Order: sequence, then C-alpha cells, then structure tokens
Amino acid sequence: MITTIQQELTKHHLNGLWITSRQSIQWLINVDIDSMERFTGLYIQPKQRPKLLVNDLFPITKQTHFDIIRINDASPLIEIMRQLSQGERIGVDRWMPAYFLMALMDQCQDTQFIIGSDLVDKHRAIKSNDEIEKMKVASQINDKVMVYVKDRLKIGVTELEIATFIKDQFNQLSDGCSFDPIVAFGENGANPHATPTERRLKANESIIIDMGCIKDGYCSDMTRTFISGNNQQMDKLYQLVKQAHQKAIESIKPGMTFSQLDNIARSIINDAGYTTEFNHRLGHGIGREVHEPYDVSASNHALIEPGMCFSIEPGIYLEGVGGVRLENLVYVDQKGKGISLNHYPLEDYRI
Amino acid sequence: MITTIQQELTKHHLNGLWITSRQSIQWLINVDIDSMERFTGLYIQPKQRPKLLVNDLFPITKQTHFDIIRINDASPLIEIMRQLSQGERIGVDRWMPAYFLMALMDQCQDTQFIIGSDLVDKHRAIKSNDEIEKMKVASQINDKVMVYVKDRLKIGVTELEIATFIKDQFNQLSDGCSFDPIVAFGENGANPHATPTERRLKANESIIIDMGCIKDGYCSDMTRTFISGNNQQMDKLYQLVKQAHQKAIESIKPGMTFSQLDNIARSIINDAGYTTEFNHRLGHGIGREVHEPYDVSASNHALIEPGMCFSIEPGIYLEGVGGVRLENLVYVDQKGKGISLNHYPLEDYRI
Repeated sequence: MITTIQQELTKHHLNGLWITSRQSIQWLINVDIDSMERFTGLYIQPKQRPKLLVNDLFPITKQTHFDIIRINDASPLIEIMRQLSQGERIGVDRWMPAYFLMALMDQCQDTQFIIGSDLVDKHRAIKSNDEIEKMKVASQINDKVMVYVKDRLKIGVTELEIATFIKDQFNQLSDGCSFDPIVAFGENGANPHATPTERRLKANESIIIDMGCIKDGYCSDMTRTFISGNNQQMDKLYQLVKQAHQKAIESIKPGMTFSQLDNIARSIINDAGYTTEFNHRLGHGIGREVHEPYDVSASNHALIEPGMCFSIEPGIYLEGVGGVRLENLVYVDQKGKGISLNHYPLEDYRI
Repeated sequence: MITTIQQELTKHHLNGLWITSRQSIQWLINVDIDSMERFTGLYIQPKQRPKLLVNDLFPITKQTHFDIIRINDASPLIEIMRQLSQGERIGVDRWMPAYFLMALMDQCQDTQFIIGSDLVDKHRAIKSNDEIEKMKVASQINDKVMVYVKDRLKIGVTELEIATFIKDQFNQLSDGCSFDPIVAFGENGANPHATPTERRLKANESIIIDMGCIKDGYCSDMTRTFISGNNQQMDKLYQLVKQAHQKAIESIKPGMTFSQLDNIARSIINDAGYTTEFNHRLGHGIGREVHEPYDVSASNHALIEPGMCFSIEPGIYLEGVGGVRLENLVYVDQKGKGISLNHYPLEDYRI
C-alpha cells in the first residue's frame, strides 16, 4: 500500500506527506501507537523509505519496510520535522493538530502545505476481503447484544441501566464500545445524539438504541428503534423510516454518488412531510474508525465503489415526542450490491 | 471566566480566539458537545458576546451568556468562520484540526493566525475548590478499585483478565475509564505504555497497574507496582522509585518550575545509575482531560501555582526484566503544599 501512496504523491506533485492519524498509520505500516498528545507521524516521500517519527516511550519491533526516527520528551520536534519536510509542496493529515502544523509552517516559509490525507483515505475506504470479514464479526457481536438489550427493555428500567449493560456486554464479548451507546426513551429520542439519563421507560413510547463495538481493530455501529406497547404515531414513523432504510440499501450501486444515495432515502421521508425532522446525513464511512470517509450526505459527490463500507441510518425526530432511527452497516460487494452487515430483524420492534 | 479570557485577548492583541477543545468549551460555557469529526467552535472576541458555532444535530438549552450560530451538514462552514474571523490577529486552539484551520487560513489571507489556547489553558490549569473536590472523588474510586485489583492478582491470572475487571469496576462505580488500563506483568512492564495481553502472572516478578476513571467530568490516574513473592532486584528499584516519588511530592512549592520538580525526582534515579531507564517526563497536568497542560518535564519552565493538579510518576524500566512506576495525583493547596489525591499505601506492594 505504501507504494500506491507514493505513486499518488508523484501524481499530485507532493514532495512528502505527514500522516498523523493513528488508524491510518496502523493501516499503512501495521504499527498501532496511542501517543495521545505526543506527536507521532509517518512521513511518506515519493521515492525514499517511509519514516516513522515517534517518541521512544513507544516500543516498536524493528521493521524492514520503514525507518524509525526516535524522539523523546526533550527533543526539538519541529526542527526534526523541518529537516524532513524539504520541498515545494508538502501534504499533511486532515487531523494534524494546529499546534504542530503552525510551528512547522512557521519554519518552512517557502513550502506550500496542503491537506493530503485524502490520498490515503480514498484507499482506506476500499476494504479488503479480510477487513470485510472483521467488520462482519464486529457486527455479529452487535446483533447478538441487541437481542440481550431487547430482553432488558422492561417498563421502569432507566436509560443509564441499559447503557451500562451494553458497555459490560461489549467489554466481555469484544474489545469494548466503538462509541458511548445512545439509549433514548420517549421525548429523549428527539435528540439524535442523546446522552443516557435516569429517565425510566414508560409504556407506549419509542426507544432508540444506537451502539457498536470494536473487535480486532474494526468497528460496528447499529441503531434499532423499539416501541413499548402501542403508539400509532410512532408505528407510522417506524414504517416510513424502514421504507427509506430498505430502499437506500437496495439502491446501492457503483457509479452512484453518495449524495444521490442520500437523496433516495431523504425523498421518501420528505415526501411524507418530514423535511426538517430528518436533520442529519444518511450515513458515514466506517472501518478502523467509527466515523471515517466517506459521508453519505447531500454534499458528498464522491462515487460509490465496490469494497466501500458505510452506515445507512435515516431517522425522524419529533421534538417533545420521540424519534425513530434504523441503522445498518452495509458494504458494496464485488458485484456492486449493497450487503447488510447487520441482521437484527426490523420486524422485531415491539416490546 | 469568559471575561478573564476577553481581557487576555485584549492584552495579547488578539481580535478573536477559536476554541475547539471539547473540554475547554465545557469548562468555559458549561456545554458538553461530543461532535466527533463535525466542527464545534467557541469564538471569543474582546468585547462581543461569545459565539458557539455548532451543528444543529446537538441540542443546547438556550443560554444567556453566549450566542449560538447553527450550522448543518450542508452549511458553508468555512465561509461562516471567515465572516466571524475579522481582524489582524486571530488565535486558534492548539488541537484545531488542520482540515478546518488550513481552509480558514486560505480564506483569510490578511489575517495572522497564532496558537491562542494557552490563554484558556493557563486558567484551566488552576482548579477551583469545587474542581478539586471532584478530583478527590475520582481518585477515591481509583484507590478503592486498586484494593479489589490487588485481591485478584493471583499467580496464573492474565493481564487481560485484570484489565477487563478494572473496566467493569469503573463502569459500575464511575462514568468509565479515563484511559485504557495498563496491566503489565514481568518483562512486559519494561514498556511504560504496555497493552494488556494473555500473559499470565508468575511468581517473583513485577506487576504494573496504571488506571483511572472519570467521575462527574473529572479524571483520576494512579499507578501502583506490586511484586509477586520475592525479587531482590525489583525490591531495590521499588525503594528507589518510592524515594523519588515521595521526595518530589514533598518538594512541591509555588514559584518552582515544573522542570525543577522533574529534576528533583530524576536526579535521585540518575544518581543510582538509571539514567536511560527513566525515559519519560515526571508527570502531566490532569482535570477534565487525563493529560492536559502543564507537563512536569525537563522542557517545561512554567511556574507551579496553588490550585494546579498534576501527576508525579517516576519509573524505572529494565528491558526483558520488568518495571516499577509509582504515580499519585497531587494538587497544590493554598498554602503551597503538594497534597496527594491518592492514598493507596506504597508499603502494600507484596502479593
């Protein structure tokens, strides 16, 4: 993969590229370093061997495919980066903190810096078979825990009790949560990113459960909505969101843009009169990170390709009443078909 | 606090300051938004009311002390930021991602951008009494879980079993881990940032447990080293690290620099011949984030002040053998004394 990125650099006339995203570094050279606020950067040039600039606090087994440049807490980091960053045009990671970037730009006045991590991200977005297998395993665990969660959704239980249960389950069955679970009863479900509270479950209301785990470095992410008893208004929204969700997954095909896909689901919801009540993108890329390129949104005109993996999660949110969101992860197979990684049945929503 | 930051802006001739750190925004205006890859920024100017630029996915109760500027996934974010960022000198957050910063700089060619978050960080570093009380509670939970952990350290247990136990305990007793716990037996302890493995505990070796939780928004972080049976080499190192740890805490006083404090502990370890075996800073600031300004390191010449809260964590690491690290959180009280937030006894290290 390094060779591919090096060809991209040549093609885009870049003298070098600083990759600082932990997951991109892991994906490129199979080294996982959680250096928190300390700088870790992989510097890729068109022809030379890649160089990993890393604090000597983080042991790395000697590798043959890249060089290691060691720093410590007292090293002149920016000066070392400056010596490496020779050339007219240097790419930097979209997530590189301003703290390092501005100091580097200050030292390299004759160099033009541009965001260059797209050259890595566009390849990361195409998952290998091995990666898809890992995504499947993480989503199978998610499906399994959703069964246990539904079993615990009894009148009187609190959102926090369910959220703690989900975290405990993922700690046992996986490497932990890929994000803090969302558990939202009734009117709390009107907030797409609700934080669990002491709110107790009542009869005849909507229940949103949005959760995911990490297993072997890959993330899952699924949302199901349940209804405690009967609620005609929510039932109607449920069927509408389900229709948008299914129609979007069926429509996936290579060559379509993400914005077109977003529009397919959104029109169904808009046509039913809920234009402002579906107030977020249809989905997001996922893999080593729970959110990664590409967005499934009105503003993303990138093309869908086989191997891509993303969420499809339409929703409708009614202030003061509740919400419905249905999310599956899907990948685009080699025939160009959208295949769901989640199998928790959409019919099983009544408790 | 906003008024204080506004005075700082005037003093430092800044027309505005973009704060993007989630914890700084929470600390400044008491709004907690986990917007992940989506932009959230608090824009502070010397005289106007602060403006929070935030995606309308994240509901915020209407507030009187700042204005809210709503964006959505389709808004022209950079254009909105450009309209706000008027003036010759604008400060940005040290953690602002390159992705937003470079696009903004591109649109504001006549503006000089500088890292300005120090103007907030230096005030965040001084904890109020209320914050210290919360830090105490988080550290009390940490002390308590360490008692349970020691009880589980039996020959044959794996590092991963202990790490999972720690996560489960923190899920029950707090709002979760402040970082993934480090559990390192024997030779694994030679890596200061070891990741737990299937390695089983054997007799007569060192055991490093480094863990912490979040409670009410504040973090704990403590390391204890245990020895399973007898190991004269590790016993000797333990006493040496303990001496450096205690001497550093006793020596804390306002007006001393963090680098001087680092040196007090480091000289004790250096003088015993372990110069390269203590290969990290003595400590780090802590509060809403597990690592925040200021570092206790050779390169930080900031002055220690009452109200500051940081870790003291000297260590010695022997490749292929094991490691010893002893970490307490301390705060500087109003009399200028360093007070430990942890009370798990250093004498209780034999299992």
